[in-house]
Formats: sequence, C-alpha cells, structure tokens
Amino acid sequence: MQADDLILVSVDDHVVEPPTLFDNHLPEKWKQFAPKSVHRDGIDVWEYEGNTIPNIGLNAVAGRPPEEYNIEPTSYDMIRSGCYDIDERVQDMNRDGVLGSMCFPSFVQFCGQLFSKSKDKDMALNLLRAYNDWHIDEWCATHPGRFIPLSIPPIWDPQLMADEVRRVAAKGCTAVTFSENPDKLGWPHIFGDHWDPFFTACQDTGTVICLHIGSSSTQITTAPGAPIDVMITLTPISLMNAASDLLWSPVLRKFPDLQFALSEGGTGWLPYWLERVDYVYQQHRFWTHQDFGDELPSQVAKDHFTFCFISDRAGVDERAAIGIDNITWECDYPHSDSTWPNSPESVAKQLDGVPDDEVNKITYENAMRVFRYDPFAHRPRERATVSALRAEVRD
Amino acid sequence: MQADDLILVSVDDHVVEPPTLFDNHLPEKWKQFAPKSVHRDGIDVWEYEGNTIPNIGLNAVAGRPPEEYNIEPTSYDMIRSGCYDIDERVQDMNRDGVLGSMCFPSFVQFCGQLFSKSKDKDMALNLLRAYNDWHIDEWCATHPGRFIPLSIPPIWDPQLMADEVRRVAAKGCTAVTFSENPDKLGWPHIFGDHWDPFFTACQDTGTVICLHIGSSSTQITTAPGAPIDVMITLTPISLMNAASDLLWSPVLRKFPDLQFALSEGGTGWLPYWLERVDYVYQQHRFWTHQDFGDELPSQVAKDHFTFCFISDRAGVDERAAIGIDNITWECDYPHSDSTWPNSPESVAKQLDGVPDDEVNKITYENAMRVFRYDPFAHRPRERATVSALRAEVRD
Repeated sequence: MQADDLILVSVDDHVVEPPTLFDNHLPEKWKQFAPKSVHRDGIDVWEYEGNTIPNIGLNAVAGRPPEEYNIEPTSYDMIRSGCYDIDERVQDMNRDGVLGSMCFPSFVQFCGQLFSKSKDKDMALNLLRAYNDWHIDEWCATHPGRFIPLSIPPIWDPQLMADEVRRVAAKGCTAVTFSENPDKLGWPHIFGDHWDPFFTACQDTGTVICLHIGSSSTQITTAPGAPIDVMITLTPISLMNAASDLLWSPVLRKFPDLQFALSEGGTGWLPYWLERVDYVYQQHRFWTHQDFGDELPSQVAKDHFTFCFISDRAGVDERAAIGIDNITWECDYPHSDSTWPNSPESVAKQLDGVPDDEVNKITYENAMRVFRYDPFAHRPRERATVSALRAEVRD
Repeated sequence: MQADDLILVSVDDHVVEPPTLFDNHLPEKWKQFAPKSVHRDGIDVWEYEGNTIPNIGLNAVAGRPPEEYNIEPTSYDMIRSGCYDIDERVQDMNRDGVLGSMCFPSFVQFCGQLFSKSKDKDMALNLLRAYNDWHIDEWCATHPGRFIPLSIPPIWDPQLMADEVRRVAAKGCTAVTFSENPDKLGWPHIFGDHWDPFFTACQDTGTVICLHIGSSSTQITTAPGAPIDVMITLTPISLMNAASDLLWSPVLRKFPDLQFALSEGGTGWLPYWLERVDYVYQQHRFWTHQDFGDELPSQVAKDHFTFCFISDRAGVDERAAIGIDNITWECDYPHSDSTWPNSPESVAKQLDGVPDDEVNKITYENAMRVFRYDPFAHRPRERATVSALRAEVRD
C-alpha cells in the first residue's frame, strides 16, 4: 500500500500538559493545591506540594534532527506547540497523516504516580479526577473522533481505581494506564488479589489496561556504569517481563475478558516469547503446577494482549506467529523514537509486501476494535487517509 | 534432512562432577584441601572449606519424564550415570546421535565462583587448575574427538585468568566460561579496562568466551512472589542483556577478533534485538556518542557473537536475519530443557524445510569453525551421523 493511502491510528503518543491543565475541571476549594506551571531561569517547571518537577527534553523532541537530541530540561517555547496545544497537535497529526491518537501523560507519570505520593489523598483524588476530566473533556473532545481517551488511576486504592474506571467509562473512556510492575512502585504485585476490584471494573466496562514502558518508574539496567544505550536497547523488554508476569499469574484466567495493551514494547520479540512460554509449559508444568486447561499459554496471551510497534520489521515478517489481530501501530509523538513527521513513509516501508487487508488491521482496524474507537462517526473514511489529512494542513 | 542423517555437535551440555574429580590432577600438598564428595542422609554433597554444596535435581533430570521433574537435592544413584561417568556419557551421546559436546561445570559454578570465594587464593588457583586439567585431560580426552574442552577462569585476577587461558590453550582448549554479568558477582563491570588482560589472552589464543545463562549467579526476577515460570521464561533474556552490554561497551571494538558464545540464550529474540540496536544507534548516537565507524552495531554483533538454541523455531525461520554462520545447536544434557534422547527428531522437526547446507552449518559446521574443533580427525564423517552413532550403542 502507498503511504498516501494509509489510514493511521497511533495507540501511543504523549501530551506535555499545558499550564492551563487545572483551570476548568477542578472544584474551587482544591484550586490552590493544584500543580502550577512556573517559568523560571528560562525553563518551565511544575510546582506541587513544595516539589519542583522539570520537563525532560527527550520527552518532546519532535521536529528536531537526531543530532540535536539531548536530555536537558526544557521550556514550552523550546518544544513544538503541538506537544501541549490541542489545535496545534491536530495540525501536527495532519502533517503526519495520523487520523487518531492515544496520548499518555507526562509530568503526572504513567499511572499517576505524582498523585499517589500526596499525603492528602482526598485532595489527590480530586486532582486526579480533574486531570482525567481535562484529558477526556478538553484534550480529546475538542476535535471529536481524533483521540482515544485514556485515564490515569488512583493507584493507591483499588476500589477508588474501580470507581474512577466506571466514572470515566460512562463518558466514553475505554482505556486506563497502569504499571508494568506495581511492585517496583511499592504497591502489591499482581500475583495476589489486591488489584481485583480494578481488574473487575475494567473487565465489566471493557476498559483496556495500557502498560507503557517506564510505568514502574524503573528501567532495566545491567550494571552501574553501563552506557545509556544499553538501557535504551533493553527498555521495551520490560514489557516482555510484564507479559510474563500476567500470563503466569492467575489474572488472565480469573478475568477472561480483560484486555491489556503493551505500549511501546515493540513486537519483534513476540514470536520467540510465544514459543518460549509454550516450551516452558510443556517442560515444567508438572512441578510448577501451572494449568491452562485445554489451551496453550501462547493462545491465552494472544487472547488478552495487544502489541504495538514504531519500527520493527522482525515483527511484521512474523505477524502470523504473533496474530494479525494483535498488532497495532504507534507514532510516539513527540518522543525521540517517533517517526513524525514521516510516519506514513516509515509505515509503508515497514509494511512493504504485506497484503492490504493486513495493513489495514495493523494501521487502524485493530486499534478501532480493541479500544472501541470510531473515528468514522465524525469523518468519512475517504477524508481519513494520509493524503486527505495532509491536504488539510494550513500553511 | 532426515533425523538419521544429521551430524550433531552440542555447544552446551553439563557435567555433574564425579567424586574422583581431584584424584589425578592435584599436587599432593593441596589434596587435603580439595572439595570432597560425601554421601549423607541419602544424598550426595560436596564439602569444601566447611561449606556443604548440594546437587540440585533440575541439573540432572535427563531420562525422566517431565511429570517427575523436581528441584530436590539428589544423589549420584538417582541420576543417570552419563551425568558423571565419561564412558556412560559417550553412550548417552550415542543414544542421542550426538557426535560432539561442550560440557559446562556444575558445583564449581559457571565461572568458577566456588574457588573465587576461597580465602587462600594460592590454594584456589591450584584447585582450579586441577579442575581444568581433569576436564581437559580426563573428561574430554578419554574419548578423542567427542568433546570441545572448556576451562573455568580464576575470575578474581584478570592476569591469572590470562595465564590460565594461555596455559590450557597450549594443550588445545579453545573455550573458557565467563560471567554474563560480573558486576552481579561483585567483580568490576565490563565497561572499563579491568578485564583487558583476560580479553587479550583470549583474542591472542583464539579462545572463545562462553557466557552461559545463570553465570552471574542471579536470575531475572520481576517481583517477590512471582511464579517460578516467570523466571524460567525470562532467563534466556539475561543473554540479551549481556550482548547489549558488550555491544555498547568498548570491548568488541577494542578486541576486533574476540569471540563470544551466548550459551543457552536461544536465537528467536535476535531478529528483534539486531534491528533494535541499529534503531537505537540511528536515533540516539548523536547524544550518546556511540561510534561504530562505517559499520552498524548489528554487523559488529554478528562478527563477535555465536548463538545457540535447543528448540526455537522463531530463530530458524529468521536465520537469514541472524546470520546463518552465527547459529549453533545445543542439547543441554542432562538439564530439564534438554531434548535427550530425542534430539535428532527434535532438530529435524525444528529445521524442517531448511536447505541441507544450512542445516549442516547449524548442527555442526559452525561449532567446528568457531571452536576450532575437528571430530573428523578421529572418526570418518560417515561414522559421525545420528544413525551411525546410534548403531554403536551397546545393549
């Protein structure tokens, strides 16, 4: 398929929250406690509960050549306005021919760790709800049909998590971010029943649980002194760990309809991993006492997980082994692994030789099905292609 | 290729050291200090420096059905005599149609950790040399052409390591075991120049450095309470970590002829990893300051690493991406992932549809080249096949 003819839905992008984040969705009594954006010494930071939270450069390098990447803290005027301004974001999506996008949070962290550390949990819950309302009702709703809403959870209390999942599901939110390893955040691991109220609410409402790399606030490291390239290389493998945890835990068997999206984990390692879990099951189940009944672990994994890639030919080549219905695409705007503004050309090259019906599943149909997202309710299909969207970019 | 016609060289098996280990190769003055095999309460243990070292059941389950696997300590009379008796080992190799084998150590640990903990390092060095002499001159030499010798290093001193590599190279040893992550053993990491004397000796003598899973005495774990299946699933990935460490470190560029074998790491993850390291290089090298000159990291990896698999169809399918000259096979006798005594049938199934010349590279030619191992100096090729070896098994 030609780049121009693609329809692209990205299941992993990022929003750099604007200074106006808490202006419109927070009860008056909490406004004085909300994080405040402050410009100081040439950089923008958030202040919250006496702490200063910087923006990190690699979070928002879209539009810069790799030669200029760095990890310095930065300011709003040093990054593309599409990072934080919703109208400019849609312009940047159009420039890249991207129809739909799911945006992960930045300074509040992947599963709202910022609020989980607050002493006043009533305040924290109100701030978190305001965050979700801003994300759903303002960031996503301004341009109907262009975004897949994604909530953050009050991770300190599984019952509150369940309540929040149900509250935002009622207004159309179909995804929530969680941690790829809550144990590393100091919360209980996923092998017991601590998280069951949350998982129950997600299953009941059809809410997909997204596990993004970095959502345990830790990185895979091999040794102190290792070059940072080691960490960058291995980071996606944290989701192989997370998938292994979930697969061998009781969770997937206890919640047969629960869906997980492994965000920014790539796909090329999956043929190996799916084969490996079946081999482990065949060789070791008699003494490890795992029981998947009539199924194989690989099939259970395929029934519960959706994967995504930016650039990953190994996964495309072995798509049949992974499951053509399990693969989605991500742009990662505005982070340093993003293909913006050349995503269509990158995707067309990655999917060269793949039949059109399979291309469509990977580039948008799987994302629509998994996240129950219907951009075509707001825009006819013929105006959703790369070429149509690029034609809408104003000069 | 039919199972009967295969020629099989396994680059990863294990020896359970016999009680006679130190009988013939240790100067008299050290004999009283040598580890002693003791039978007590129905199990066999080693006693050394006041410590008791058990055998672990999963080390030696060859011949048992998976239903009977367990991790209990065990005794010599509970395991196949091929685990520790060299004549019986060759019989078991013949039963499995395996021509050649490289055997990793058991109770002294993968890189001789047992001796590295000794207070008297002069004694430890003498014991370690005796171990290597037993391995090379007794275990491997009893049946010429059937084994690839493998030494253990005095890991506490890189100059002694270099001396020992040169000493055993002079009598034909072409491989040494090292740690996939020495930092986790309490030794310096591989990013500085601490290990340079060792690496220099290995490069000078053409000695291949084998990095076996478990050789850092640690496992990949995700959280306390994780089912052991998680650890079993993820263990091979420790060698993706090790390969990443070496690739992004100065080692491979500083020692252009140095060769590493990743032992029991599998191959199916390699297409992903090779693509990933090039993507990381392309996207991030300007700020991480990596420089591979005119090459890509993936090519440097292929120039320095040999991989092996037990059962890993994902790697076979993508063998062109991995490099057909980089793939070897392992039996893992007598451990619980082993295919013994049905290795030929397993390999034939794994390699179904692969052209004969590529089958031969994977099953024996690559191992012969990398380890400079020539079984045909002792046995004509037509008597080296699975069917010929199986015909030699005495009843």
